[in-house]
Amino acid sequence: MDVAHVLHMNGGDGEASYARNSFLQRKVICMTKGMREEAIRKVYCSRRPRSLVIADLGCSSGSNTLLVVSEVIMAVEKLCRELKHDDESPEYQVLMNDLPGNDFNNIFKSLDLFVEQLSKQVEGGVGQCYFSGVPGSFYGRIFPTKSLDFVHSSYSLQWLSQVPEGVVNNKGNIYMASTSPLNVFEAYYEQFQRDFSLFLKCRAEEVVEGGCMILTFLGRRSDDPSSKECCYIWELLAMALNEMVFEGIIKEEEVDRFNIPQYTPSPSEVKSEVMKEGSFSIDGLDVSEVHWNPFNDDGSDDGGYHVANLMRSVAEPLLTTHFGEAIIEDAFCRYRRILTRIMSKETTMFINVTVSMTRTAS
Amino acid sequence: MDVAHVLHMNGGDGEASYARNSFLQRKVICMTKGMREEAIRKVYCSRRPRSLVIADLGCSSGSNTLLVVSEVIMAVEKLCRELKHDDESPEYQVLMNDLPGNDFNNIFKSLDLFVEQLSKQVEGGVGQCYFSGVPGSFYGRIFPTKSLDFVHSSYSLQWLSQVPEGVVNNKGNIYMASTSPLNVFEAYYEQFQRDFSLFLKCRAEEVVEGGCMILTFLGRRSDDPSSKECCYIWELLAMALNEMVFEGIIKEEEVDRFNIPQYTPSPSEVKSEVMKEGSFSIDGLDVSEVHWNPFNDDGSDDGGYHVANLMRSVAEPLLTTHFGEAIIEDAFCRYRRILTRIMSKETTMFINVTVSMTRTAS
Repeated sequence: MDVAHVLHMNGGDGEASYARNSFLQRKVICMTKGMREEAIRKVYCSRRPRSLVIADLGCSSGSNTLLVVSEVIMAVEKLCRELKHDDESPEYQVLMNDLPGNDFNNIFKSLDLFVEQLSKQVEGGVGQCYFSGVPGSFYGRIFPTKSLDFVHSSYSLQWLSQVPEGVVNNKGNIYMASTSPLNVFEAYYEQFQRDFSLFLKCRAEEVVEGGCMILTFLGRRSDDPSSKECCYIWELLAMALNEMVFEGIIKEEEVDRFNIPQYTPSPSEVKSEVMKEGSFSIDGLDVSEVHWNPFNDDGSDDGGYHVANLMRSVAEPLLTTHFGEAIIEDAFCRYRRILTRIMSKETTMFINVTVSMTRTAS
Repeated sequence: MDVAHVLHMNGGDGEASYARNSFLQRKVICMTKGMREEAIRKVYCSRRPRSLVIADLGCSSGSNTLLVVSEVIMAVEKLCRELKHDDESPEYQVLMNDLPGNDFNNIFKSLDLFVEQLSKQVEGGVGQCYFSGVPGSFYGRIFPTKSLDFVHSSYSLQWLSQVPEGVVNNKGNIYMASTSPLNVFEAYYEQFQRDFSLFLKCRAEEVVEGGCMILTFLGRRSDDPSSKECCYIWELLAMALNEMVFEGIIKEEEVDRFNIPQYTPSPSEVKSEVMKEGSFSIDGLDVSEVHWNPFNDDGSDDGGYHVANLMRSVAEPLLTTHFGEAIIEDAFCRYRRILTRIMSKETTMFINVTVSMTRTAS
C-alpha cells in the first residue's frame, strides 16, 4: 500500500482532523523552539543571506501550519536588530510542502491575514515574505538543487512511504508489538532505513552548505522497538479490532493483513542514518515527551475521548481504505473505551525525537 | 470594488467555467507559440542556466493551465539537443501564480500525470521539474528578487486591479462605449497605466537580467478606445441588462453603478508603458485575432450559445456580487439571444495584443 496514495485519495488529513490534533502538535512545536532558535542563529549569522529560504515539510493545513514559519521569521528579525542590521531584514521565501492531497487552497486563503498579523507583532515590520505551495512526497526530490537554507518537519517523518513488505505473519497486530515475530521488526526497521536515508539524500542535494534542518519524529527512548512507549497506542487499537473479529464483525484475515505504515525510531537509530548518509553533521539530538491527552496532563478528564479523536484523525484514512467505512464508528467507540480504562490507571506518553543538523561541505 | 476580492470570494473562475473558455485560450496560446519559442531560445542560449525558472501569471486551473509550461520545457529540451547538450537538461522550476481563490489543489493533483506524459513526449526524457503554487495578485511583488528567467501571462492582464474611480456618469454602459463621456475613457486609461506600470515595476525586480517576459492581453488594434472591436461584446451585455431595466427587473441606478474592471489596450498603449517603465526592451509586439466563437469560424452554428457561456464564465462573479444571483440566468439568456442575432449578421473577433520583452541591465 502506498501511503501517499491513500492520504491523497482521502484528501489528506482535513482541516477538522487537524483541529483535533493541533493542540498536541502545538505543544511539541513549543518544546522544540530552543533548538530551532539556535539553528536559525547559526544559519543567519554565518551567511547573512539577503534571501532566506525556509521549507516546512509535511506542513498540513490547519491552525499550526504557519506556526513555525512565524517563529522562524521573528527569530531572524530579532537577530537583525541585535546585529544592528535594522534596515536589512532579508526577504523570506517560505515553501510549504505536503502531499498533493493536502488542502493548499486553505493555506493560501489565510496568508494575507497571516502576514498582516506577523508584521504587527514585530516592531518595524518584517522583510518581504514570498509564499509558495510545493506538492509532493519528501521521499523524493521536491526542491531545486542547493536552494534551501532552513528545513523544518514536525510529526511527519515517522510515516513510512509504504507498509514494509514481508510482514504477513504479524497476526493479530497492526504495528510492531511484543508478540510480533522477529522478521516483522526487521522489515519495519529496514523500511525506515530505506525511507529516511532516501529523505536525507534528497535533502542533501537541496540544502545549501551551512543550511540547517530540524526534524521531529514521533519516536521512542528505548532501543527496544517493541517498547510500550511507542507500540502501546497501536496495540490498544488492535485490541478494539480483535474484539470486532471475535464478535464476527471483521474477518480475522482482514486484521492480519492490516499494518500501519509508521516507524517510531530511537535517537540512536536516527543518528545512525544521518551519520551513514554523511552529508549532515548533527548539532543536537533531543528526546521529549508529551501526554497522550495534552489537554489534561493529570489525566482527570476523559482522556480516552481526546486520544481516540486524535488517533482517528491520523488512522481513519488507512482504516477506511482497508476495512471500509462501515466499521469505523464502532472501532473508534471501542478504542475510546479501551483508552479511557487504560489512561485512568497508567501514565501514557508520546515520545518525540528531535534532531538538528547542518549541511556540511560536499 | 476590488477585483481580487470578488474573484477570491467566488473561488476564482472554477474548473467548469474554464472548460468552457479553454478552447479560445488554447487557440490564442497556439497563435503566440512562435514568439515564445524565440524568447526561450534567447533566454536559454544567452545564459544556459542549470536551473531555469518559469513563471505563469494568472495560470488558472483547467485544461490549459500547464499547456505553455509543457511547450516551453519541450522547446528547451530541443535546444539542448541541438546544442549537443544531450546530457545536460536544466532543472525546471515552474511557478504557477494566480489569486488565492484559484483552485491550486486541482492543479497539484494533476502534476504527476503531467510530468509522466511530458517525459514520454520527449525522447530521452526531460530535466527534473519542480512545481510550486504562488498565490497572490501580480499587481504587487509575488516572487523573490532576481529569481525569474521566463515569465508568461495570457488573457489575465486586461483585468484591472479595480474599477476605475470617477466613472459614475457612465450611464447605461458597463464598460467604455461609444456613448461614454470623455472622463470615463480617461479614468479607464489611467487605471490601466497605473496597474500595468506597477506590474512592470514588480516584474523588473523579479526577472533576472536577460530574462524574457511574454504577455498576451485581450486588446484592440485601433487607437480609439471606444472601438467596436473591444467594446462591442460588453455593449451587448449592457443591452441585455438595459432590457431588464426597461422591464423593471433591475433598477436603472444598479446598471449605472456597475462597470467592468477591464481595459483592452492597443499595441501602442502597451508599448508606451513598457518604454516609460524602462526596465525591459521590446523584442516583438504582435496583434492577432480570434473569432468570438472559436468552435466555428464560419458562424454556422449557434455561436450565441458558446459566446454567452464564455462571457458568463468571466463575468458571472462580478455580476453576482453587484446584482445578486437571482438575475443571472435571465441576463445571460437575453445576452445569448442578442449575441446569436448579431453574430448571424456580422463577423465578430477578439483582438489579442502580445508583447515580448527582455529585462535589460539595471
